[in-house]
Amino acid sequence: MRRAIKCAQKAALRGEVPVGAVIVKDGKVISTGYNKREEKKNALMHAELIAIDRACRKLGSWRLEECELYVTLEPCPMCAGAVANARIKKVYFGAYDSKMGAMNSVIDLSKYNFNHHFEAEGGILKEECASLLSDFFKKLRNKNERQSTNEQ
Amino acid sequence: MRRAIKCAQKAALRGEVPVGAVIVKDGKVISTGYNKREEKKNALMHAELIAIDRACRKLGSWRLEECELYVTLEPCPMCAGAVANARIKKVYFGAYDSKMGAMNSVIDLSKYNFNHHFEAEGGILKEECASLLSDFFKKLRNKNERQSTNEQ
Repeated sequence: MRRAIKCAQKAALRGEVPVGAVIVKDGKVISTGYNKREEKKNALMHAELIAIDRACRKLGSWRLEECELYVTLEPCPMCAGAVANARIKKVYFGAYDSKMGAMNSVIDLSKYNFNHHFEAEGGILKEECASLLSDFFKKLRNKNERQSTNEQ
Repeated sequence: MRRAIKCAQKAALRGEVPVGAVIVKDGKVISTGYNKREEKKNALMHAELIAIDRACRKLGSWRLEECELYVTLEPCPMCAGAVANARIKKVYFGAYDSKMGAMNSVIDLSKYNFNHHFEAEGGILKEECASLLSDFFKKLRNKNERQSTNEQ
């Protein structure tokens, strides 16, 4: 999860909502990703999808059966669905997401009877992962307030 | 939907499970996609994700707010989640998917309170869309049986 947090910090430096993801197989990191939605202007560019895409390319297979995903924020339905499609074994996530979370908060897709069953465990380094996000949004608000004061 | 069916037929010709998708804005097709999971060996290469990716690139935005998605098969959770993330207005799908369907069959993600609400309508040219799939799997079974007979 420490590596996923580092990925999320890279996103923050680029003005992206800081979410980072890492895929591990046999104890080794095989791919990483961080949110690039704004940079790429693309709704699919979540940290998890980038990491899954890279892992498939690296292994030359759409099946990531022996892989685990570490991600700093609870995956949204798109990313939870991608985990099922890629046959990922287990997901470890940090902060919970009350608006889009699909492994506990809004819904728990790991409990449904899809083609593939995956496990999900949340709250790993929760405070650290959550403060990445709260610090980012605090800075963004301060920046916006300064801009609006300057414009007056 | 006729255009989505044509996309699905392209997938079948390439030995892929035949699913096709089209994104429409202001009555015009802005992108298309067909399933390329086997060709690309990538779990993300569903017709809908390919079409959404292309639409984002074309419009230079992750918001596809005035767009509608037509797809021959009920979207899985990954694709339903991508619809929500991309702020797509409405989804029209053909055949229902009892194993992975996330807009009616296993679950209906359009009914959950995520950041964005989208509408979904299934059963459009249902027989035609479903027979694309059943014909494909029938041919695949026949081919496999012939191979196994030849090997004996």
